[in-house]
Amino acid sequence: MKISQIGEDPFIQMIKEKMNQDLPKDVIGIEDDCAVIPYTRDKLLLLSTDSLTEGCHFLKDKIAPEDLGYKAVMVNVSDIAAMGGRSLYLLMSIALPSDVEESWLKKYLEGVQEACSEARVFLIGGDTTGSKNEIFINFTIVGEINKSDIKYRKGAQIGDKICLTSPIGDSLAGFHSLMEGKTNRLTQKHCKPKAQYKQGLWLGKQIAVHAMMDLSDGVDQDLARMMLASSKGAEVVLEQIPMSEDFLEFAKTHHWNASEQAVVSGEEYCLLLTVDPVEFERLNNEFIKKFSCPLYVIGSVKSGTGVTYLQKGQNVKIESKSYVHFKEQ
Amino acid sequence: MKISQIGEDPFIQMIKEKMNQDLPKDVIGIEDDCAVIPYTRDKLLLLSTDSLTEGCHFLKDKIAPEDLGYKAVMVNVSDIAAMGGRSLYLLMSIALPSDVEESWLKKYLEGVQEACSEARVFLIGGDTTGSKNEIFINFTIVGEINKSDIKYRKGAQIGDKICLTSPIGDSLAGFHSLMEGKTNRLTQKHCKPKAQYKQGLWLGKQIAVHAMMDLSDGVDQDLARMMLASSKGAEVVLEQIPMSEDFLEFAKTHHWNASEQAVVSGEEYCLLLTVDPVEFERLNNEFIKKFSCPLYVIGSVKSGTGVTYLQKGQNVKIESKSYVHFKEQ
Repeated sequence: MKISQIGEDPFIQMIKEKMNQDLPKDVIGIEDDCAVIPYTRDKLLLLSTDSLTEGCHFLKDKIAPEDLGYKAVMVNVSDIAAMGGRSLYLLMSIALPSDVEESWLKKYLEGVQEACSEARVFLIGGDTTGSKNEIFINFTIVGEINKSDIKYRKGAQIGDKICLTSPIGDSLAGFHSLMEGKTNRLTQKHCKPKAQYKQGLWLGKQIAVHAMMDLSDGVDQDLARMMLASSKGAEVVLEQIPMSEDFLEFAKTHHWNASEQAVVSGEEYCLLLTVDPVEFERLNNEFIKKFSCPLYVIGSVKSGTGVTYLQKGQNVKIESKSYVHFKEQ
Repeated sequence: MKISQIGEDPFIQMIKEKMNQDLPKDVIGIEDDCAVIPYTRDKLLLLSTDSLTEGCHFLKDKIAPEDLGYKAVMVNVSDIAAMGGRSLYLLMSIALPSDVEESWLKKYLEGVQEACSEARVFLIGGDTTGSKNEIFINFTIVGEINKSDIKYRKGAQIGDKICLTSPIGDSLAGFHSLMEGKTNRLTQKHCKPKAQYKQGLWLGKQIAVHAMMDLSDGVDQDLARMMLASSKGAEVVLEQIPMSEDFLEFAKTHHWNASEQAVVSGEEYCLLLTVDPVEFERLNNEFIKKFSCPLYVIGSVKSGTGVTYLQKGQNVKIESKSYVHFKEQ
């Protein structure tokens, strides 16, 4: 069987089984946005790693090198934000074919620098090496969090409101727009996403937030992962999916089912969280005051498993194809 | 200008300059085998990252998947050993083309598991993703060290004896042997190197060891880096380079200048260290007792800069080509 037929989650499961490790009790391994290891008396250390490969995650002639550098940092910062933490340090590996120009590299590094400076994270190490054909970028990020503030995927409780910290869909529309040779606000959202590290840090401190993760593979896949970790089910109301005007316009001209495409849009890097319904209004008001944007409620946590979608009060199936990493060429 | 014309060290320098960071005082960034960050009151945390790219670091049809998995872990363990530390945790990123077989993956993971179990390190996270043509592997390792035990590249002092913890050259001969379609002890040394983590941990505790690093790019380049960091020069006596019988035999049949090839052999993953000459004999005796192998003295630290080679008492130049990452195709 080929890797493309296995899929990402079963592959991760295979890794866990093959490793067959008895982790120390105070360590959390492969099950959340970050690994968690002991740090100081009051704090935990968060670790996460993310790759961007040319031809799969980006096309060199479609993304400006400075945007690529910025994005590579921000997708890692987003993983720390996903657990409520503060990003501290980065390690960057970059494998380059011998024909990459110095000017491309300098611009790429400018983007890395911009994102590091914005998110206040230090680049403290890395590996530079050759590659035969494609550019391969890997960042590992280290963050910290107060023990009492950490949010896991597994914390969702029945009755919780399922929320997003921003409208979704722009990244997918931006990708298609990019393929059509355009440059606009949507392509910018796809190429230069900004991690919601301020929101993550604030939400981490709120007891009313029961579960949190970032949206890298889309609501459909990521919410299913959160529900699996929480042993719960989710009901999502498609009419409540928040979408930008640009996205709706793009969806209309491309004859897309807008809300369906929005829930499978990956690389969004906003936060997906579940909130105690009793505390929601107070929390939302404080969030709006702080971030000038609401928490968008898209559904609620139920007993059961998986993600169910409702449209006009009826159960519907999502027919759009989910975001995949292991594509058949 | 293309990346292949810049070279690895100037590229790392470019990264440092572009980032232009004021690191916190208790953090060590891009200048040694590992980055160093604060941990507990008595300990520091060590972080390092290393990539292996198909076509540059390995050929899929020339290395068994289990050896590749083992090697990918060990090259990272070696970086922690290089500073005298103990490896704790690993994060693994792997980008795979869609046609990679599940059976290949399972064997690869067995190699990862074997090395982790041997070096007592836990795999706590990672990223699995697609790649268009080549396999990319990146590991990030986290280790710990007592503050008083840490060894840097920059500690070499004039008069120190320059030592290796094993004979060198096998990896380069193994690579060539592999290209000739052979399988033997040399190819095994190249494909399945074992990091000297026990030696590193022990040497870290010895005050007489002034500077240490691991040998990933060969004595010629790595010793030059150590001397640059220490603001000293090195004198290496080619007659004293330790070489295995298999290597000498291979060098003879291939009309190699054996000691010259040995000092440019990369991916050796033994340790390179400088030792207080007054303490050397005592230290060496203890090392032999513990590891059944001596510290091989190859020269001494002088004032000045760079690496000078002596043969029959005369200065000689190394004409063999150094190990490079950014090869022209």
